Amino acid sequence: MAEHEGRYSSASLLSVSASAQTASSGTLPSWNEGPAKQAILDFVRATTEQASPKFVSPEDRIATFDQDGTLWVEHPIYSQVVYCLDRVPAVVEKDPKLKNVEPFKTVLSGNREAIAKLSLHDLEKILFATLTGMPVEDFEAEAKKWLATAKDPRWKRPYTDLIYQPMLEVMQYLRGNGFKTLIVTGGGQDFVRTYSQQVYGIPPEQVVGSAGGTKFGYHKDGTPFLTKEPKLLLNDDKAGKPEGIHLMIGRRPYAAFGNSDGDREMLEYTGASAGARLMMLVLHDDAKREYAYGPAQGLPDTKVGTFTQALYDEAKKNGWTVISMKNDWKRLFSFEQST
Amino acid sequence: MAEHEGRYSSASLLSVSASAQTASSGTLPSWNEGPAKQAILDFVRATTEQASPKFVSPEDRIATFDQDGTLWVEHPIYSQVVYCLDRVPAVVEKDPKLKNVEPFKTVLSGNREAIAKLSLHDLEKILFATLTGMPVEDFEAEAKKWLATAKDPRWKRPYTDLIYQPMLEVMQYLRGNGFKTLIVTGGGQDFVRTYSQQVYGIPPEQVVGSAGGTKFGYHKDGTPFLTKEPKLLLNDDKAGKPEGIHLMIGRRPYAAFGNSDGDREMLEYTGASAGARLMMLVLHDDAKREYAYGPAQGLPDTKVGTFTQALYDEAKKNGWTVISMKNDWKRLFSFEQST
Repeated sequence: MAEHEGRYSSASLLSVSASAQTASSGTLPSWNEGPAKQAILDFVRATTEQASPKFVSPEDRIATFDQDGTLWVEHPIYSQVVYCLDRVPAVVEKDPKLKNVEPFKTVLSGNREAIAKLSLHDLEKILFATLTGMPVEDFEAEAKKWLATAKDPRWKRPYTDLIYQPMLEVMQYLRGNGFKTLIVTGGGQDFVRTYSQQVYGIPPEQVVGSAGGTKFGYHKDGTPFLTKEPKLLLNDDKAGKPEGIHLMIGRRPYAAFGNSDGDREMLEYTGASAGARLMMLVLHDDAKREYAYGPAQGLPDTKVGTFTQALYDEAKKNGWTVISMKNDWKRLFSFEQST
Repeated sequence: MAEHEGRYSSASLLSVSASAQTASSGTLPSWNEGPAKQAILDFVRATTEQASPKFVSPEDRIATFDQDGTLWVEHPIYSQVVYCLDRVPAVVEKDPKLKNVEPFKTVLSGNREAIAKLSLHDLEKILFATLTGMPVEDFEAEAKKWLATAKDPRWKRPYTDLIYQPMLEVMQYLRGNGFKTLIVTGGGQDFVRTYSQQVYGIPPEQVVGSAGGTKFGYHKDGTPFLTKEPKLLLNDDKAGKPEGIHLMIGRRPYAAFGNSDGDREMLEYTGASAGARLMMLVLHDDAKREYAYGPAQGLPDTKVGTFTQALYDEAKKNGWTVISMKNDWKRLFSFEQST
């Protein structure tokens, strides 16, 4: 709008700029002024103003968000992994011979160091053992129960309290401008769907994640059921993200948000077409308010959400925006005061 | 509403009934008055009126629709099969040795009877051969081009003209009452997504169908691409329909529409929970205006959309509504005058 009105006089340009300024500090209140916030405002303006050469019709406005490390805290361990580990005692109770079998033995030992060293393959083994044959409604009920009671050891709050307030604001701002917001997570699709509506305002069918198969069958009385199967249909990480987007959404996003090498392909795919596109990466560089990790900018590497220097270089080369948690976010969580 | 107001006087009951009558003939104009139309109106009233004991909150209002034979003409051959057959000459031109290999040889012969006898396995072979390695954007462009030019031999119109007007009205009516409408088809997900927005007002991500894998890769200049792979991820038919609903939507529908044994499990799954549920099956009993087929009610069986007597009996037993094309639909297509 500023551009358009500016054609008439510099005075009207000035007044419009001032009012845009006010509007923008009202829109993303947990963001500090800076290039990251500006990139979001510019993108929305370019895609939604009728006169813009990069206008995108409302039905094409798609924005995708990674979850772990992008929408909520992922360090030092993914919440969903904690959920799976917490289920192990109940699983072993049902099938006691697992007690002496790895990786169950290690999990039951309670040895945190040993548990932290479990491989992804070990975790997958646990996942399949804990979920196979479970009716989908039971899974939903149990995951909801766990989420209502389990607490993050540092903040001593439910995991769903540890959603980044600035990212909630971005999602609301995009939705308010006609965008459909979708989660595209390496985490379990069924798990995230149990709280996506309540926590993010995103309905289950707008959550794309790693997905196992289900099996349709009948109880003795003829009632049909769906149970979880040990078959991975979609590994929604790295190249699996654009593949998952095609499978579950069927078109290229205009905006994509991530925080790690697992999101690289999603951002590349989002950026590889004409028109205004917004690609953003959250850099965890805030040791005080959250954590600092990722080899980019010399931060230490971790087992979760690796943000390599190569990804950082690619972001700079391609014009993606790196969000500095430390500098760009006024506050992190809704339960905090603005600082 | 009539029930509620009827408590006061029979005069007010009468006047309310009359106005409901007017409203209802305004809503589904291509439907004749009768039990099928009434079932739709009753379901919407029960799920959307605040005071109803079966009220469903707006974010839970999900309705799923089979496509072939439910939303558009499927007889005597699925349009998508015609599309695949039409692509064979171009495929053989690229790979001439296929010319003497079955089933390509038969397709190229142009022998309609022999082509009609091809098995599902043959068609799958053709499908994979014609689509493998194709960039997803090329597939979309080519399918759109085909749909814009190909014509049904009986009506001599594009296939997308052969959408049932009464079903379009049901979808619009449900959406107008806060329902999200989704297609759940045994047909190819990518194919239906190319026209779902334009034809049904349903965006691509609300189309669940049989889905193949894709492969993410890079061109020599580093640009990423997705190509189609010969790997079936979801066979969205019979038990695959509730499984596909869980995978792609993540919750149970409140209403489901189908027309054949391939929709049985979707309707069973939809009906297997508390609350108001609407299950409907289109019976093709209109030889004059469309076709008459399906062993239910003694109609002849065909290779497409088999509606067995067993399904008919199950529908009656479970209180599902069978829509008689002949009796319940005032007109079939938007290009027709009401009869």
